[in-house]
Parts: sequence; structure tokens; C-alpha cells
Amino acid sequence: MIQFKNLNQEEPYLLFKSKYDEAYSAEQKVIEAISISTFENKTNEVDSRFVNLKFVSDNEFIFFSNYKSPKANSFETHNQIAALIYWSSINVQIRMKAKIRKMSNDYNQRYFENRSKKKNALAISSNQSKPINSYKQVIENYNKSLNNDNLKKCPEYWGGYSFTPYYFEFWEGHDSRLNKREIFEEIDGCWRHSFVQP
Amino acid sequence: MIQFKNLNQEEPYLLFKSKYDEAYSAEQKVIEAISISTFENKTNEVDSRFVNLKFVSDNEFIFFSNYKSPKANSFETHNQIAALIYWSSINVQIRMKAKIRKMSNDYNQRYFENRSKKKNALAISSNQSKPINSYKQVIENYNKSLNNDNLKKCPEYWGGYSFTPYYFEFWEGHDSRLNKREIFEEIDGCWRHSFVQP
Repeated sequence: MIQFKNLNQEEPYLLFKSKYDEAYSAEQKVIEAISISTFENKTNEVDSRFVNLKFVSDNEFIFFSNYKSPKANSFETHNQIAALIYWSSINVQIRMKAKIRKMSNDYNQRYFENRSKKKNALAISSNQSKPINSYKQVIENYNKSLNNDNLKKCPEYWGGYSFTPYYFEFWEGHDSRLNKREIFEEIDGCWRHSFVQP
Repeated sequence: MIQFKNLNQEEPYLLFKSKYDEAYSAEQKVIEAISISTFENKTNEVDSRFVNLKFVSDNEFIFFSNYKSPKANSFETHNQIAALIYWSSINVQIRMKAKIRKMSNDYNQRYFENRSKKKNALAISSNQSKPINSYKQVIENYNKSLNNDNLKKCPEYWGGYSFTPYYFEFWEGHDSRLNKREIFEEIDGCWRHSFVQP
């Protein structure tokens, strides 16, 4: 699930929420899955992966990550990203382009405190995307971390990211392939609305 | 559905096929949906969208597109892409990085001939991602195109793309969040296999 807080009342946000509600009613599996695509200057490479979108708060889309992960490194030198959702239950794709930034330490600490100790043990124990000998080792590291004295203290290398889209596309698939594609593009603080061809 | 032809017998391809079979048995919806992420040099922007993966032929992943679309333009100046699949029915994510290239005119023509006239009418009528006044106009253009004399002739602005990954990650989600992440990286013509932390 995605939690909505004081949702921005502009058109693309309301449309996002209305598609979310439809997908939720259609029992969409893993409704919070969102692809985050990045550009890494060092290697000149695009990369992408799914994360869990936790909150849409006003106009900010928020997820959490290790701050030393490859995606975190990419954000440092190229803070523009693409975000992508596909809800198969309603055959709707939502494409976004945005700038991304870190949440504050205070925000991260408050959020971390309210998570389960099990989740926190994993966040503390895992050097995200760093090599490891085996999957068995992952489980051993986690079990060791469960004995950590303070599972409510957010490590500095873990926290939230927020992105605020400047571009939305709402794509609705039709059996005929005459897909409907609706664009919202932010220009000088206003949303320009248009359609594009399938 | 994805069609497999003379599948490459190296480990990441066999694993891809085996995960596909699992997702297929689990009745995965829209199993052919794959996100293609690009980098556009002109605007310095990452973008991503879902396409339908049609074939895996030997070591080539093949999908079709308008050759004048924004993604086609991005491929021209930055031919490295990220491809991403998520099969919610089995909670498996497959991440790939690859170089992409156009299929030949002959290949495109042969493929086009064997598609339905309705699909071809759309490919012919649509200036993919170009602005249009309304969704109604999309339908009118399509209906006009249905009367086209030769719906079996592939237009030069439409055809296949093939990419051959040099990097695979197979990510299996677990309820515990102790996700299993297995990497295959091509180095000097061989696949280096490793695990990374969740």
C-alpha cells in the first residue's frame, strides 16, 4: 500500500490518486512497486530497479534506501530520475520524471523508530548491493543484527528519498491498442495538459 | 506471452526461462511487460516506459517500436539501456543492462506481414508520442488508416529493436525482506556469477 498525506490538489496528483484507488479496488498485487531509473555519470550507464513507494505527501513521492547503495551514488551526480508504475489489474502505466533529494535526519529517525525491529535489523545489517559470498551469509548477518542493542536508532547510511515530478504521463492500455496517453508537464509553475499518440 | 526461439543455453538465459515458466504457471498478468530505460543526451534526462517483449531469440531480447519515437531518438545517441521486469505472481524482479540495436528491414517486413491488419493500421497511423488534439482524433486517424491499400507493407519508420544483456540481476523477494539477489556479469565473454546484499 501507498499512504497518502495531505495530497496536493493539482490535477495530476488527483488523477494519480484516482488510478491508485481503481487499482486498489481491483486488488492490484504489490501496488507500491515503482521503478526508479538513474543515470550513473562514472560509467555512463542507465540502470533501474523497483523500490516500494511508501508515501505521497503533498507533492512528494517518498521511498527508503541505503544511502551508500549504487542508486544513492547515482543520485549524487545526476539527481534527475524516471519513475514508472504499471498496475496490470487496470492496465494503467504512470510515467514520471523528477528531481530527487534526501529526506532529513530527523525525518528518517522518526520513521525508523516506528518500524518493526525486524525490518530495522535488516536495514542495519545489509550493505545494500555489496557482494557477499552466499545467500546463507545474508541470513547469518541478519540474525546477528537482531541482537543489536539499539534497533530503534536509524543508522546514518539509511533513510528516505523524495521526488517531486515535473512530468507525468498517464497511459491507459486498450485491447484495440488504441492506448490513451495523457501528459501533464510543469511549465513555469503550471501544469500543461495534452494528449500524445499511441 | 514471450516467444522463445533457439534459446541461448548459458546460465542467465536458462534462469530467465525458468523464472518465466514459473510466472506463467502462476498466471502472471501481462507477462511480456518490460520497462526500457534510456538516457537522452540532448536534455540530459533519464526516461522509462513499458513495452511488450515479443521474443527471446538466442541471446537477443526483441520488441517493436516506432523508429521516430522519443525512445528511438535516445537510442541513437546513447545505445546503452536498462531493462526491468517484475512478475508479482512469483515476486521476482529481473534487472538487465544491455546495448540496443535496430533489427534489419527484412526482419521487420517479414514480421509485419504476419501481424493482423488492425495492428498494422495502428502502426501506420500513429506518430508515436507526437502531440494530438484529443483521444477522439487517435481513433479517427486509426479508422482512416484501416482503409489503407497495403496494410501488409511495413513502413520504414516502424520495426524491431534487439538488446543483448551484459548484466543480469535475478531478485527474489521474501516476506522477511531477506531478498535473494543473484548477479551474472559478462566479463571477457564469460559470465561471472555472484550474490549481493539485499
